[in-house]
Amino acid sequence: MGFGFKMNGLIKWNLVLVLFFTVFSHVYADDGYRLWLKHNLVEDPVLREDYSKRMGYIAVEGGGEILKTAVKELQSGLQSMLGITVDSNMQPSFTGGIVVGVAGQSSSVDTLLTKDERAWLGEEAFLLSSRGTMLLIAGGDERGVLYGVFRLLSLMGQNIPFDNLNISEAPAVQLRLLNHWDNLDRTVERGYAGFSIWNWHELPEYIDRRYVDYARANASIGINGSVVTNVNANALVFRKDYIQKTAALADVFRKYGIRIYLTARFSAPIELGILETADPLDPAVREWWSNKVAEIYDLIPDFGGFLVKANSEGQPGPQQYGRTHADGANMLADALRPHGGVVMWRAFVYSDEEPEDRAKQAYNEFVPLDGSFRDNVIVQVKNGPIDFQPREPVHPLFGAMTQTPIMMEFQITKEYLGQGTHLVGLANMYEEILQTDTYTAGKGSTVVRIVDGSLYGNKLTGIAGVSNIGTVRNWTGNYFGQADWYAFGRLAWDPNLSADTIYREWARLSFHKNEKVEEVVTTLLRDSYKYCVEYMTPLGLHHIMAAGHHFGPGPWVSKMSRDDWTSVYYHKADEKGIGFDRTATGSNALEQYGAGFRKVYENPDECPEEFLLWFHHLPWNHRMKSGMTLWEALCRTYHAGADGVREMKRLWQTLEGNVDDETYDHVLMHLLIQEKEAVWWRDACLSYFGSISGLDIPDDLELPEYGLDYYKSLSYPYAPGIRPRW
Amino acid sequence: MGFGFKMNGLIKWNLVLVLFFTVFSHVYADDGYRLWLKHNLVEDPVLREDYSKRMGYIAVEGGGEILKTAVKELQSGLQSMLGITVDSNMQPSFTGGIVVGVAGQSSSVDTLLTKDERAWLGEEAFLLSSRGTMLLIAGGDERGVLYGVFRLLSLMGQNIPFDNLNISEAPAVQLRLLNHWDNLDRTVERGYAGFSIWNWHELPEYIDRRYVDYARANASIGINGSVVTNVNANALVFRKDYIQKTAALADVFRKYGIRIYLTARFSAPIELGILETADPLDPAVREWWSNKVAEIYDLIPDFGGFLVKANSEGQPGPQQYGRTHADGANMLADALRPHGGVVMWRAFVYSDEEPEDRAKQAYNEFVPLDGSFRDNVIVQVKNGPIDFQPREPVHPLFGAMTQTPIMMEFQITKEYLGQGTHLVGLANMYEEILQTDTYTAGKGSTVVRIVDGSLYGNKLTGIAGVSNIGTVRNWTGNYFGQADWYAFGRLAWDPNLSADTIYREWARLSFHKNEKVEEVVTTLLRDSYKYCVEYMTPLGLHHIMAAGHHFGPGPWVSKMSRDDWTSVYYHKADEKGIGFDRTATGSNALEQYGAGFRKVYENPDECPEEFLLWFHHLPWNHRMKSGMTLWEALCRTYHAGADGVREMKRLWQTLEGNVDDETYDHVLMHLLIQEKEAVWWRDACLSYFGSISGLDIPDDLELPEYGLDYYKSLSYPYAPGIRPRW
Repeated sequence: MGFGFKMNGLIKWNLVLVLFFTVFSHVYADDGYRLWLKHNLVEDPVLREDYSKRMGYIAVEGGGEILKTAVKELQSGLQSMLGITVDSNMQPSFTGGIVVGVAGQSSSVDTLLTKDERAWLGEEAFLLSSRGTMLLIAGGDERGVLYGVFRLLSLMGQNIPFDNLNISEAPAVQLRLLNHWDNLDRTVERGYAGFSIWNWHELPEYIDRRYVDYARANASIGINGSVVTNVNANALVFRKDYIQKTAALADVFRKYGIRIYLTARFSAPIELGILETADPLDPAVREWWSNKVAEIYDLIPDFGGFLVKANSEGQPGPQQYGRTHADGANMLADALRPHGGVVMWRAFVYSDEEPEDRAKQAYNEFVPLDGSFRDNVIVQVKNGPIDFQPREPVHPLFGAMTQTPIMMEFQITKEYLGQGTHLVGLANMYEEILQTDTYTAGKGSTVVRIVDGSLYGNKLTGIAGVSNIGTVRNWTGNYFGQADWYAFGRLAWDPNLSADTIYREWARLSFHKNEKVEEVVTTLLRDSYKYCVEYMTPLGLHHIMAAGHHFGPGPWVSKMSRDDWTSVYYHKADEKGIGFDRTATGSNALEQYGAGFRKVYENPDECPEEFLLWFHHLPWNHRMKSGMTLWEALCRTYHAGADGVREMKRLWQTLEGNVDDETYDHVLMHLLIQEKEAVWWRDACLSYFGSISGLDIPDDLELPEYGLDYYKSLSYPYAPGIRPRW
Repeated sequence: MGFGFKMNGLIKWNLVLVLFFTVFSHVYADDGYRLWLKHNLVEDPVLREDYSKRMGYIAVEGGGEILKTAVKELQSGLQSMLGITVDSNMQPSFTGGIVVGVAGQSSSVDTLLTKDERAWLGEEAFLLSSRGTMLLIAGGDERGVLYGVFRLLSLMGQNIPFDNLNISEAPAVQLRLLNHWDNLDRTVERGYAGFSIWNWHELPEYIDRRYVDYARANASIGINGSVVTNVNANALVFRKDYIQKTAALADVFRKYGIRIYLTARFSAPIELGILETADPLDPAVREWWSNKVAEIYDLIPDFGGFLVKANSEGQPGPQQYGRTHADGANMLADALRPHGGVVMWRAFVYSDEEPEDRAKQAYNEFVPLDGSFRDNVIVQVKNGPIDFQPREPVHPLFGAMTQTPIMMEFQITKEYLGQGTHLVGLANMYEEILQTDTYTAGKGSTVVRIVDGSLYGNKLTGIAGVSNIGTVRNWTGNYFGQADWYAFGRLAWDPNLSADTIYREWARLSFHKNEKVEEVVTTLLRDSYKYCVEYMTPLGLHHIMAAGHHFGPGPWVSKMSRDDWTSVYYHKADEKGIGFDRTATGSNALEQYGAGFRKVYENPDECPEEFLLWFHHLPWNHRMKSGMTLWEALCRTYHAGADGVREMKRLWQTLEGNVDDETYDHVLMHLLIQEKEAVWWRDACLSYFGSISGLDIPDDLELPEYGLDYYKSLSYPYAPGIRPRW
């Protein structure tokens, strides 16, 4: 029900937009809700005419609901961008129209495809091709068609001409998922864009328009799954009324080719009041899960499966019963297999006991289990071994298990990256990790080849991003946060895309067409990640944030319930030096990496300086490649980061009048916050490290405005994104 | 800064709207964000021409920022509704223009005013008058002008012709305030429309567009103050950085004539870490508050003052130090007086010890203090003596204190009235209470005369509404919740307006002009309050909701930490009868009312049946005026309420195609929830009361679908609006 009227509303809205943009070719206000799907009128009349002449009709045969969605999206996009109403009930002729359909299910499509093309077109793949003044959008299945339609609209949104258009693409990865750390009370753990868009209380009856627009936005960048609940899971999602609520969301998502997933609380059989154990080898437990899964599939036939955080940070798990992660995952996998579901078992685990080096533990726990997981289990690993730090080396589990598929977990939200207000383009981080060579099967063992399954021939592949989406009107709070969502989707589809390519696409689609804007926006996104690392955790420093909310600097944090939750555990600064020795003379975490990788990082004089203090403890007067001492380099890098934010602000200010006032002011207000906080990070950290090293900040640099005690005294009890303690 | 660009954005948007509506005269989609300020194009060309010919120019002299706001609002409204750009820099001539200004500050205005008119125009008052083809908008001050402008735009929005327009109005009440029960973490106690619109974390730098639109909406209905924090208060608002955040909001509100207020946590001097006591007679405490208030006024020169909940439901207060409410209020009043601020001291208090009748306690605590409050203190009293029940008799404090100003506290949110999903027009409840005769100074001692100060000649007057506003796009969650916000503002301005008048205004302003829609919307709002009381708490029943979230029925609730938090305490049903005896044979709460009032309610055969079980405990076979037994009347009234919701749904469905699809579906989805929940209330309550009375539901009525145990088993741990326990 929710869907039909939404599309009607959408089409009306788009009619209005055409009118709107036809008359207002200047810069207009934008609240950001439409994301990269602005579908602005193509202003160049020649190009618009060229597009239009290829789009006299849409010829489509038969099809299910995803194909219907594809055609509606195509029609509404053409309405918006070209101002034309295109009939979809036409018979194909030889010129001036679009033939749309699934290979093998449409004779028109099949006629236009070569035998090779037909053979190549697999699941989710599409072929987008101009043939004279005709256009062909062929999919290997209906999702493929939908992706082809969105790609076509994206090309038009970027004003790319269609001569000799010939794109054939298939996703490199099967599971392309958003993970929502959303609680049932609508708070979002590590969420900085308002609250959860899932209004559980009013589901299943009330279908928020956002649900449709969410699905639409995701489908437009190839995301095909959504885990709607927090990894710190709540058993209540398995109560009948909540399954009905989830089913109502699934009904919305399905039309956009998106499967719904839930997080499974391992102790659910106990908490829902039926069993006294959650032991994965207990037959009653196995039966409980088997029945529960059947109940879910009864209402959601395309349910995707479970994401599980177990035996980690207080979450229950199989180890409570003397079982392994594999025992736990396999039990759930057995329940899901008859229905086609998967288990994504997270490797973000660390021992309840004090560890020697937290960075080593996931590897230690999981590598011995290699080969013992069912074939519908995939192990989900954060990009780095600690916890979504601004910059981490790749997690050593990538490449370490040859018989177990490994799924990437990236952060799209910005827990340790400035949260909701800082402009930080994350595609650089994604690219850096994906292109890292792990050397686990020799040179060329890049992370991308592990994630896409090609290195070890894994059948199941996946990539997940922890969502930055919330109730705020523009979805992500910071407008540039939309670029991270976009980049994640694009890289999940094609992990070899460069950050720069993605930024440029996003800039073209997200602002009114203007070359100056495109350049500045691309530059801001490209440079911002480097600046953020510099003003927060330069030279390989990590986990020096204030406790709890992880919002501001807290290098002095030394008293927590566990040592490995403190900052001093990670930076180990004393009067002599700073850094965490992870070489053979220290924790030897480096040992978990491939030989070629170790070789790059084990010698402090060769180790890339961005990871220097991650792997090495060094004296303050250690000589850097530049000739500066480590202390001076630390000072100058912190300053470079803060100066970078000022440069970003300056660059943005050159756009006044080139972007609409609302967006301009929105971004500028956030840049002012970012500037203030970059200086805060810099000054708090240098004050602290200076007090430890006894060294002075070089004379030519701006000195901290306040004393160290001031920075220590600051408190933010209501910073967003903290998990409520109830 | 936030303001200028917002107005620019607004004007652009309005330009677009004109274009939009000019072409699309049919029904268009609406997300509800614009509230009653739709400012649709006037479609009747004759009327549009008539309006336009009176609006050739705007003549305005000098003025401060509120006058500037008024002119901008006027210009943007005319742009939207008439499609004309009107210059505001014109000299007045004799025809075809609008003269705008403050009496005594504008020679053009003064020329057009009679001596009597000039004398009459006091604070916040306006005169709106057509003189030939000229229009005059004169204010007693700049706020008066702003209110006059909004009234003019409202009349145009209702398509009311301007021949012989002659309106002169002054608000009946001085303090017309929204109370936000918003916590600093953005949760909202008893909030059902998303989360708090105040993004404290990003203030003061980030000015959300909502802040401006919030101020604008309030000013348009005459609201002139906003208490932005929860009455269950947090001392952190007095930390310097939070005062700066509040000041940033105040800067936005000021331009719309709205003062900002904070809730004062009585123990703040202790919690901010400086003092060991909060004793209001302690000189150090008095000095602390005095300094804190000065610090606030330094940043917010028009700060309004404090709202205080003390010694109530665990909040700290003067009684902890053996002092009275008056001691506490006066201490804060003394700190505020030099700056012109007021204290609103809430009377929602009840003893920590088990009371004989909670309904009596506020009266018992406050009446002895009459005459001992400073003149800048006003006592804020909920409309009824228990706690925002669906229907309560008036609170006995109204009229009981002759030397103390009493301020009304209404609920706009719907804690016990279906929360975010039920369509329930609250103007009926406001009207019923305001027009109640308390008889405290003889016949005619209506509540409205107590609230407006005329009964006892109080200098300070006020009315507050607990806000139903949140982050949801349409502000109130349920679209019809906007009508309650609107009604509250209109009644605060003129407490003698009828609910029906207000509903009709709102219907005209909130939907595309259509007589059928106007009739149905007005009918729904008018009848819905009665239905809600019937399906929840008919015949004077009260406080029989489930514990905690107060969402669904819970007449069986019997075990809470206090008896007077249980349902059985209030309904006192047993095998013989039901109801709370508040006559002389019972708690004698009736004694607290005026003699004329008592006379109406003390005899069960004369007591209006809607309050029968509020004041009387009666046998199940008590004979009602209809001849039915009490039990049968209870059954039939519950059914009438649920049947009413079905009728509402049917009525709404007659509007399909007459309102835009988005609004139509939005309302219908909520009505489906309301229908389901009305039946739930009915069946759960009748199952329970039937199990107590041993009587059967009459044969001709639909029987409950489930057994009583089922209804008891339902749980809603994440129902919205609960105060997080942290």
